[in-house]
Amino acid sequence: MIKVGEPGWIETEKPVAGPLDAICKPIAVAPCSSDTHAMHGGAGPMENRILGHEAVAEVVEVGEMVKKFKPGDVVVLPCTTPDLAGEVKLQEKGGNNAHDLDSMTSFKFLTFKDGVFAEFFSVNNADNNLVLLPEGVDIADALMVTDMMSTGFYGVEMVDVNLGDTVVVFGIGPVGLMAVAGAKLRGAGKIYATGSRPNCAELALEFGATEIISYKDGNTVEQILEKEGGKKVDCVIIAGGNCNTMNEAIQLVKSNGHIGSINFYDVADTFTIPAFEWGLGMADITIRGGFCPGGALRAEKLLNLIKYDRIKPGKTFNVEFHGFDKIEDAFKLMDEKPKDLIKPIIYIDDLD
Amino acid sequence: MIKVGEPGWIETEKPVAGPLDAICKPIAVAPCSSDTHAMHGGAGPMENRILGHEAVAEVVEVGEMVKKFKPGDVVVLPCTTPDLAGEVKLQEKGGNNAHDLDSMTSFKFLTFKDGVFAEFFSVNNADNNLVLLPEGVDIADALMVTDMMSTGFYGVEMVDVNLGDTVVVFGIGPVGLMAVAGAKLRGAGKIYATGSRPNCAELALEFGATEIISYKDGNTVEQILEKEGGKKVDCVIIAGGNCNTMNEAIQLVKSNGHIGSINFYDVADTFTIPAFEWGLGMADITIRGGFCPGGALRAEKLLNLIKYDRIKPGKTFNVEFHGFDKIEDAFKLMDEKPKDLIKPIIYIDDLD
Amino acid sequence: MIKVGEPGWIETEKPVAGPLDAICKPIAVAPCSSDTHAMHGGAGPMENRILGHEAVAEVVEVGEMVKKFKPGDVVVLPCTTPDLAGEVKLQEKGGNNAHDLDSMTSFKFLTFKDGVFAEFFSVNNADNNLVLLPEGVDIADALMVTDMMSTGFYGVEMVDVNLGDTVVVFGIGPVGLMAVAGAKLRGAGKIYATGSRPNCAELALEFGATEIISYKDGNTVEQILEKEGGKKVDCVIIAGGNCNTMNEAIQLVKSNGHIGSINFYDVADTFTIPAFEWGLGMADITIRGGFCPGGALRAEKLLNLIKYDRIKPGKTFNVEFHGFDKIEDAFKLMDEKPKDLIKPIIYIDDLD
Amino acid sequence: MIKVGEPGWIETEKPVAGPLDAICKPIAVAPCSSDTHAMHGGAGPMENRILGHEAVAEVVEVGEMVKKFKPGDVVVLPCTTPDLAGEVKLQEKGGNNAHDLDSMTSFKFLTFKDGVFAEFFSVNNADNNLVLLPEGVDIADALMVTDMMSTGFYGVEMVDVNLGDTVVVFGIGPVGLMAVAGAKLRGAGKIYATGSRPNCAELALEFGATEIISYKDGNTVEQILEKEGGKKVDCVIIAGGNCNTMNEAIQLVKSNGHIGSINFYDVADTFTIPAFEWGLGMADITIRGGFCPGGALRAEKLLNLIKYDRIKPGKTFNVEFHGFDKIEDAFKLMDEKPKDLIKPIIYIDDLD
Repeated sequence: MIKVGEPGWIETEKPVAGPLDAICKPIAVAPCSSDTHAMHGGAGPMENRILGHEAVAEVVEVGEMVKKFKPGDVVVLPCTTPDLAGEVKLQEKGGNNAHDLDSMTSFKFLTFKDGVFAEFFSVNNADNNLVLLPEGVDIADALMVTDMMSTGFYGVEMVDVNLGDTVVVFGIGPVGLMAVAGAKLRGAGKIYATGSRPNCAELALEFGATEIISYKDGNTVEQILEKEGGKKVDCVIIAGGNCNTMNEAIQLVKSNGHIGSINFYDVADTFTIPAFEWGLGMADITIRGGFCPGGALRAEKLLNLIKYDRIKPGKTFNVEFHGFDKIEDAFKLMDEKPKDLIKPIIYIDDLD
Repeated sequence: MIKVGEPGWIETEKPVAGPLDAICKPIAVAPCSSDTHAMHGGAGPMENRILGHEAVAEVVEVGEMVKKFKPGDVVVLPCTTPDLAGEVKLQEKGGNNAHDLDSMTSFKFLTFKDGVFAEFFSVNNADNNLVLLPEGVDIADALMVTDMMSTGFYGVEMVDVNLGDTVVVFGIGPVGLMAVAGAKLRGAGKIYATGSRPNCAELALEFGATEIISYKDGNTVEQILEKEGGKKVDCVIIAGGNCNTMNEAIQLVKSNGHIGSINFYDVADTFTIPAFEWGLGMADITIRGGFCPGGALRAEKLLNLIKYDRIKPGKTFNVEFHGFDKIEDAFKLMDEKPKDLIKPIIYIDDLD
Repeated sequence: MIKVGEPGWIETEKPVAGPLDAICKPIAVAPCSSDTHAMHGGAGPMENRILGHEAVAEVVEVGEMVKKFKPGDVVVLPCTTPDLAGEVKLQEKGGNNAHDLDSMTSFKFLTFKDGVFAEFFSVNNADNNLVLLPEGVDIADALMVTDMMSTGFYGVEMVDVNLGDTVVVFGIGPVGLMAVAGAKLRGAGKIYATGSRPNCAELALEFGATEIISYKDGNTVEQILEKEGGKKVDCVIIAGGNCNTMNEAIQLVKSNGHIGSINFYDVADTFTIPAFEWGLGMADITIRGGFCPGGALRAEKLLNLIKYDRIKPGKTFNVEFHGFDKIEDAFKLMDEKPKDLIKPIIYIDDLD
Repeated sequence: MIKVGEPGWIETEKPVAGPLDAICKPIAVAPCSSDTHAMHGGAGPMENRILGHEAVAEVVEVGEMVKKFKPGDVVVLPCTTPDLAGEVKLQEKGGNNAHDLDSMTSFKFLTFKDGVFAEFFSVNNADNNLVLLPEGVDIADALMVTDMMSTGFYGVEMVDVNLGDTVVVFGIGPVGLMAVAGAKLRGAGKIYATGSRPNCAELALEFGATEIISYKDGNTVEQILEKEGGKKVDCVIIAGGNCNTMNEAIQLVKSNGHIGSINFYDVADTFTIPAFEWGLGMADITIRGGFCPGGALRAEKLLNLIKYDRIKPGKTFNVEFHGFDKIEDAFKLMDEKPKDLIKPIIYIDDLD
């Protein structure tokens, strides 16, 4: 990203490792819609910033205080990399280390420093943020852990899906698909997923959705309530849609129910919450919007799910590129979002 | 309430006890702003409905399946009286039995049946909803348990006040005062309370507020943030204000923080949540609005706090009436809300 | 059960429905080891008590206050049927309605009244305890919900299995198998199950275990720790073994970890907790033993898991009987526990 | 501590600050019974180890990566100082950072390195572990935060004291006193405290106990149950006693109740849990034993409670020494534990 609206290549110095840092080179990366969003100005007027925050990589250098990693290690890198202050944040009521100092400040790549679409990139607080690629785990699956799976699952965690719950997931892009998969993994009963792209819908059903609701067939809220015989649902996860989706979620969720948003909204957006639908403020409907936590333990746990065959998230990648110079093509593809794209992966350097 | 806008006396039959019910006669009652609100049409176009839902009473008759109570027992009656379905609601994620079937449907008085401003009134599911007035507990203190204390404390529970937290309470009417007292009882550190009435402010300080913020001294949000050196707070409890108060709360609460609303909004109200202040949906700010749970155990626990001298809530009543026929005067006083009123109590029949 | 040690048939009156009760006749039942245990005196010196607490049944009569059910309804009956006091229990810290008044007092069949191995039996608090057999759910699957699945899953709930956790389940009898299945449904990563019976082991792997540990291959604790490279595990569920199993669990679980026991111990049993293994009391290892909660909502949620193809628990039944008079055979089989038995089912009256 | 059983002075090098460390000199310190316990061999066969882990101190040097502190800062130092791995531990289910790698490994002083009874001592991970002494907070009060208040309150947190709960605290030494104070601060109703020393009993009542139970007046369990009319209690906190105390706790706590132990047991101790009292493993009684968490946020929150006049813990110190060379006298006094001692404080260097 040269400047807003202008992608391109940047020539810069190889980053230097501070005492707690690791310098890595990417093995496989994937563009995220927050990368393209940033490029169009969604993260403010940045210039000369290397994008990218989803990577499986090889460690090439470590700071003097890094104990758990050494050059040559193949690692998975969560997109959220809290600094030392993450420890303090975890002690807070909400306990999400995504917010080192203020909201989302543990999202270092793109926001505070150059990202992973580079020959080398630096990872802060390496011992607490990196995890070794476990034996037997496929690189594409592991790459999904870094952001899509962590984010989608965080939606599930926010609404506290319980055994047998009825869950609605708005959106079946890569994050929504992972929210569906996460809801199933936590024991949801019925899972409605909303979306209209056929290949996403197919994958949603494979990941655990029991019913796909398309806006093309009528009002989403009405369709779901009709199928439920007028009964409202336990949890709604917002992983797509627009400002009005919150409104729809409030219409769908029962008293004592939970709404969790993992959407990134624009600075100018404003939700409206209609008091009537929100039970005049009395219905005990909980609304939370959040950013996926980071850190090594979370990544390790998510990788366990792949290692022990609980999920195969890598099938979300339905386009594959090879070679560092193909990042630009993948990025453009992501930006254009053709109808049949789910998510592209770029293998920089095939392992053997 | 004869009809909307017209208070008055209603002549009606003495209620009959179903198998699980208790018939009671009031010993002391208090009008609540939801009573006056209902009278002005806030609960829809009711006619010939006896108002009132805060009472300490004497049991005069019990249904055949009531095991714990007998005529002559002096009881405290929570304003929220879940029916059998309350048991199911408690098993839900949110676990609030205020919503028997749908939102707030455990609030039986006023909404579904005649209230306590009567010679006799009926209490459903008596064994699970009534509690004996403990020895040594003052009637005025016990009367506060039925709604004000249960509601104010529920605000504290919703935001999960932890030891040493910094808390803001919007509003210092009777409910807000109890939210302040509850925050102190759960171990809050600094407690800001907003309001401008001098006698309420004085009582708020007595109940545990460390600082009173008046809108007359400038913008509430700015005043608090300035006093905190720009640091946001852990919890905000909304116990007063208007639709815009939610907006102010979002500006005040830090990432990972909680907002709890115990306000009753109008059907036509709409909140706006500005995405920017809400961390673009990423700040892990939780918003919940709810109605106080009911049931015997809750009332018993709250009465314990009085019994063991942890709180003296009765001092919230600063006007006292005596005699059944003074209910109307008290009701009118509550409706007019003169500047120095906090809350009136009416003793129907002094115990000796 | 005529008296301790003597099974047999009892001639008795058809039970009468109280206002909140339902009278049912069984469609399918299963004996549980707590039935045989009781017969051998494990529940004290009872006489002339009809055993049985796992049933899918048809409603034949309802009390005058029962609203949700009518004669002819086919219902699933949780083995734990809290009375009205269950509502109070749910408001407690631990929130388990299995303990109406004191420990386990919501387990009415066998303990307080005649059970389901009868032509007719009575269900207390029917509206809150029964649930309709959902369309498309197999009777054998539904029968597993009543106790085995509810109990096994409660083990999982007690230890709070999180995404990617490493879990040990002691025992692979029917309850242990359901604990394995429940751990998988909540998103466990690695699941060790201990046991030696080949057909149970096979089923455990099918339900989600990743590794079977047999005591025949050496010390259980050592085997697991060796496979984990010395690392302790997140959660241990005790669904089998003896008093010493708690000791083994403490040796296996890491600091901050959880142990949940769903075993029924004898009055004379005593556990020992070695302070050294328990981190000198400082390791933040949590130990909980409990009884499965009851109630309609829980059963409904568990049935949802079957309805939406998340689990197929009925395959645990590997012996099938037909006819009311075969209950005795099934009971004796359960008592003898031949090596290849997992659990028998008796269909009283085939639905068509 | 020269070796087991032999206290004395050690001449050693001034510690050197690593990049994340702070070097401090003590302003006030206090001996803890774990210090005297260690001296008698309770922490194994250490030699030449400087004891002490409760200090308010002045920073004299900071490592190059320390951002929040500078020489001259007056700081409060929690006795538990997790290293970077603390961040990982906080992400675990139990979420206690006291166990960096294995149980209690965040308790660095005494166990892994020299303590605070020294001219200078080193604090690891300073930015996450130290907190500035807030203006207006008394040094004696702040010193109580480092261990006694953090530990006693942790007992309260483990058993999750709720509004109106009935709580038993075993032991009214300094930690037990703080457990009493913490239970009150979380909103307990009735608080029983067991102990026989008159000045401790008096202080317990002042901190919030409603009743003192002395073993001299008979069996503790029987005394409490009698006063409760046979009703069991919600929570038991073990802050004193011996191995048998766990047994008594199990007899006192009701189904769904919680037991939390903050006692340090000997390697050779073994608890016995009688199955009958533990509800045959079915009573949903939770047993947890743990070590107080550390870190800056916890200390900051506890200091807030002092700053905003919620508690005045410093009155626990009833003997005062002045001067570095008086540490030995205080230590000996602590070791002898005369009947009227509660806890001594040593001011090294009076601030002015």
